[in-house]
Amino acid sequence: MRLALIGAGRIGQVHAQAIDAHPDVTLAAVADYHAEAAETLAQKYGARAIAADAIFEDDDIDAMLIASSTPTHADYLERAARTGKAVLCEKPIALDLARTGEALRVLEAHPVTCALGFNRRHDPQFAALKRAVVDGRIGDLETLSIISRDPAPPPAEYVRASGGLFRDMMIHDFDMARWLLDEPIAQVQAQGSCLIDPAIGEAGDVDTAMVTLTTASGRLCHINNSRRASYGYDQRIEAFGSAGMLQAQNESETRLRFTGEPGQVEDKPKWFFLERYAEAYRREIDDFVHAWRQGREPLAGARDGLEALRLAEAAERSLREGRRIALADIH
Amino acid sequence: MRLALIGAGRIGQVHAQAIDAHPDVTLAAVADYHAEAAETLAQKYGARAIAADAIFEDDDIDAMLIASSTPTHADYLERAARTGKAVLCEKPIALDLARTGEALRVLEAHPVTCALGFNRRHDPQFAALKRAVVDGRIGDLETLSIISRDPAPPPAEYVRASGGLFRDMMIHDFDMARWLLDEPIAQVQAQGSCLIDPAIGEAGDVDTAMVTLTTASGRLCHINNSRRASYGYDQRIEAFGSAGMLQAQNESETRLRFTGEPGQVEDKPKWFFLERYAEAYRREIDDFVHAWRQGREPLAGARDGLEALRLAEAAERSLREGRRIALADIH
Amino acid sequence: MRLALIGAGRIGQVHAQAIDAHPDVTLAAVADYHAEAAETLAQKYGARAIAADAIFEDDDIDAMLIASSTPTHADYLERAARTGKAVLCEKPIALDLARTGEALRVLEAHPVTCALGFNRRHDPQFAALKRAVVDGRIGDLETLSIISRDPAPPPAEYVRASGGLFRDMMIHDFDMARWLLDEPIAQVQAQGSCLIDPAIGEAGDVDTAMVTLTTASGRLCHINNSRRASYGYDQRIEAFGSAGMLQAQNESETRLRFTGEPGQVEDKPKWFFLERYAEAYRREIDDFVHAWRQGREPLAGARDGLEALRLAEAAERSLREGRRIALADIH
Amino acid sequence: MRLALIGAGRIGQVHAQAIDAHPDVTLAAVADYHAEAAETLAQKYGARAIAADAIFEDDDIDAMLIASSTPTHADYLERAARTGKAVLCEKPIALDLARTGEALRVLEAHPVTCALGFNRRHDPQFAALKRAVVDGRIGDLETLSIISRDPAPPPAEYVRASGGLFRDMMIHDFDMARWLLDEPIAQVQAQGSCLIDPAIGEAGDVDTAMVTLTTASGRLCHINNSRRASYGYDQRIEAFGSAGMLQAQNESETRLRFTGEPGQVEDKPKWFFLERYAEAYRREIDDFVHAWRQGREPLAGARDGLEALRLAEAAERSLREGRRIALADIH
Repeated sequence: MRLALIGAGRIGQVHAQAIDAHPDVTLAAVADYHAEAAETLAQKYGARAIAADAIFEDDDIDAMLIASSTPTHADYLERAARTGKAVLCEKPIALDLARTGEALRVLEAHPVTCALGFNRRHDPQFAALKRAVVDGRIGDLETLSIISRDPAPPPAEYVRASGGLFRDMMIHDFDMARWLLDEPIAQVQAQGSCLIDPAIGEAGDVDTAMVTLTTASGRLCHINNSRRASYGYDQRIEAFGSAGMLQAQNESETRLRFTGEPGQVEDKPKWFFLERYAEAYRREIDDFVHAWRQGREPLAGARDGLEALRLAEAAERSLREGRRIALADIH
Repeated sequence: MRLALIGAGRIGQVHAQAIDAHPDVTLAAVADYHAEAAETLAQKYGARAIAADAIFEDDDIDAMLIASSTPTHADYLERAARTGKAVLCEKPIALDLARTGEALRVLEAHPVTCALGFNRRHDPQFAALKRAVVDGRIGDLETLSIISRDPAPPPAEYVRASGGLFRDMMIHDFDMARWLLDEPIAQVQAQGSCLIDPAIGEAGDVDTAMVTLTTASGRLCHINNSRRASYGYDQRIEAFGSAGMLQAQNESETRLRFTGEPGQVEDKPKWFFLERYAEAYRREIDDFVHAWRQGREPLAGARDGLEALRLAEAAERSLREGRRIALADIH
Repeated sequence: MRLALIGAGRIGQVHAQAIDAHPDVTLAAVADYHAEAAETLAQKYGARAIAADAIFEDDDIDAMLIASSTPTHADYLERAARTGKAVLCEKPIALDLARTGEALRVLEAHPVTCALGFNRRHDPQFAALKRAVVDGRIGDLETLSIISRDPAPPPAEYVRASGGLFRDMMIHDFDMARWLLDEPIAQVQAQGSCLIDPAIGEAGDVDTAMVTLTTASGRLCHINNSRRASYGYDQRIEAFGSAGMLQAQNESETRLRFTGEPGQVEDKPKWFFLERYAEAYRREIDDFVHAWRQGREPLAGARDGLEALRLAEAAERSLREGRRIALADIH
Repeated sequence: MRLALIGAGRIGQVHAQAIDAHPDVTLAAVADYHAEAAETLAQKYGARAIAADAIFEDDDIDAMLIASSTPTHADYLERAARTGKAVLCEKPIALDLARTGEALRVLEAHPVTCALGFNRRHDPQFAALKRAVVDGRIGDLETLSIISRDPAPPPAEYVRASGGLFRDMMIHDFDMARWLLDEPIAQVQAQGSCLIDPAIGEAGDVDTAMVTLTTASGRLCHINNSRRASYGYDQRIEAFGSAGMLQAQNESETRLRFTGEPGQVEDKPKWFFLERYAEAYRREIDDFVHAWRQGREPLAGARDGLEALRLAEAAERSLREGRRIALADIH
């Protein structure tokens, strides 16, 4: 697979590395709004810099990875579909349901392999948890708890453009919830506060939130977000069922333990997503290539993006209105 | 302290053992609706069996422990107050706010040392967590998560008389939340399902529930209850703040680890409250005696019972009405 | 069982508490070289102070617990046997094989229930490990590792009278090795150093030692001793076999975990034997009473004391001579 | 760095992958006794197959990695030195001290960058332990314990040619001991048995062994080897000092925990060295390239190979003679 990357920023660089390490994918070209950024990244991996528009006309390019700024995602995605290129698009497709829905309709009209960047589904530990649930290790799944805390809050200006905590951060957890619960979600209840940075509150957002999802059959899911965990990236999932419990625990750089005056001390959790999800990004590329070759759906696709966004909308409305929201009311 | 115990059932027996082991308390008498039960328990600890009514006329008795059936609690509590006896009353005082409020007014009119059986405050691990929070170990407390799951569901007839999951089971977690958050709770949101035993649903109750509390300053608290955890009594608390996190983990009988074909295996959590809270029951008695001697308030008192019940009421209403309930509306 | 305690020092007090808590044993009398010490301890538990010699003439006393100074053990033990009293004797019977052997011969001539204070066999965690080995959980036992470190070194004058690290401290580990290996030990190899306190070296002893035992069938056992572990009492055992491994881990006061700047921090191990083996001391008394009643051997008896002492002698000789010692050569 | 690899077997393939992933090293050529094996591996990474002899005449090749069979190591190493090529040689240089000493003299006469394949020094966890010891985290280092168990025993014919457990397997642990103790080792004591496979005993070797090392200043080190751990590759190190303890724990594929009927279960340790030391092999290549570029010594060099072999010889002699061996007597 010859692949063009749009976006040479932080997440683009993560993907470039994963692409380079994959035996079956060649990083053919890199585009970025800042030409030098594209040039630098392209050079590092022996690719060429390219204008974004040129990608769609280049028959030598099989696939593209969209890691540019959020407002450009939907357009690039549609153009990829129309020009028959496989596409791996960073989440979100768009910050609103209408624009996301349009993009889905284009994809339906022009079907291509389309993966969405819900990287956590590819994390080895979460994947093992999913497998164990499917294999019936805990009997019937009854409740799910997802804890997801970033190490440090973003600047308020980022928050302003981000679509808010539910769309920007909890969107990953909504996707994990959908993937693990594996049945329609019926209701959403949200609560949130601004406890960390008043500027986030002034930007109209919360930095601490708890959401409860209820599925059609009554399973309950708790999601717990904070924009700041002083000890690093807190990424845990607990699945509880009739025959037991599965817990995905935080991962550390080493398992070295010191025992001394302060107690028994092990490393903090890995600092942030680059460290925690390095392997997930590699597997995401791998899944994308294999889906493209085999003509099958990738592990996470465009519709998953739409559905996670509906949950974010519902949560936002529940927070605002102080009541349980039926997901059926969110279009 | 010469103490009379009312109620020779399971929880009465737990208390009798703790009383017997305490150097400063003598189990003077045991009363029970079933005279033989009182007789048997009294004999075991060298006490005498007594009629409940006789306790209040016995000047030789300093204090009483009410461990009889729930509907009798409020009456006995009031009679203890009127006759000037210190009293340790099992929770709840009553299943409704009106009756509980009456008992509190009697206590105000006839002040005696009055402790309420919120045993978990006396658990060494939770007490250490509380101390660490107060000492500022995690900076400003921002969120709290309380997981509390019983090993096996009670029979539906028990459920019917219990006042429901929020009053009967989550009441302990409401108390822990109040104690640890240490500020007024403003709002309550609840969600619940019947996933374990349909008979519980037919009795009008849920067996699986999640509640979100919000304090006046915006702190969030998640409570997670299930009537059945196949692996034993699941009793964990996580306090998260600006400078870190505290986790009270489950306790096991031993720390023995087996590594072999199935993986690295440690013991299950202790089976139920008798095992998990044995030390808490001892410390509860100790706190009661010291409070009585020193004329100070016990760690948990009658008002804590009322406040926890208000939270249970709010949760029930929220579950029913599908909306956030302001605690100020619960009287 | 009406029991007299000889020795009102630290370990005597531990036993007194365990005796008092046992429903089937009465602490009838306390003797001590210092009459006031006996008086104080006796009073605390409603017993009477007594002269040591008077115990043996008191038909009302069924049993005695010898917790006096080491040089008195063998004499008291023999007198207990001759006067038909059950006896629980703190280890060691004596510091040399000859005197220990004599006492054993007296016990053979005058058989009474005789337990030796190898308290660790009664520790719930080690007992669970033993049971799992016997049950075949790890297949054939191949190697054993015993780590035993005291929190702080004793004063050099204590060391001088103690018989040395192998007789005073590692004696417990020799007993655990014998108990767990459950087959004759054939060879002993020792190595030791004085790394902690030069005064210990000047007293002719080591403070850090490693010993390797080999059983008749070739099983290997490593024992690791240090007189000082800054973090508390380090008491671990690892049994390794053809089908897996069992690890008895250190125990802490709580399972509370703090995650923050320094990492993920749990409590240090319990500080010393009073904390770590409180339950073992209770079970030791319980085993003693039951052995006495049922006319069976206690879990650890006088012969175990002799055999552990032979291992200590062999280790000392190996350290001195720099070679492997056949246990058959130690009489 | 343009590198030629000799040996396309299992360990050669591991190195090829690590070389390919390193941005600064090019796998230029692959040689193997079996021409097809060389061809296949070369093709996989875009290198050319080459005859081993041709490497030394190729000016285009900067360095070579010797991963061929043990008896060829010393010759290739000497030829690399004589032709001025940097060399990373798999351990051991040779199975006897004489041949190893010769190779060292050639290296002295023809100095090139020479690294020896003691991969464990490059393991992130052991490296972190080393750093913590050097930084004084545990005060003065007093004792060291190294546990090293393979998942399954090799066939007896392998054992026969391997030089025996001390030279073939414990050699890694001797190197870790030297590296971590960081002071001359004075004495060696060994004990060993054949408990797993009688054919190993018939081949004149042991499959289970314990060794005690003593340094010049009296530090003690325990090494614990087994040829078979049913649960996977058991690789742990414990460093104990005046101010605390460091423990490098086993690593698992995930941190997923299941709690249910069998208890609290986590993954077994990683299966074998390919899984456990994948990162170590990458860092080994990285250290080699940097040492070559900077003209400094690699983390492990030829002399470390000789010294570890001396310890193996001493252990073997101690096992045979049943006594402590002074390392000064091993030449």
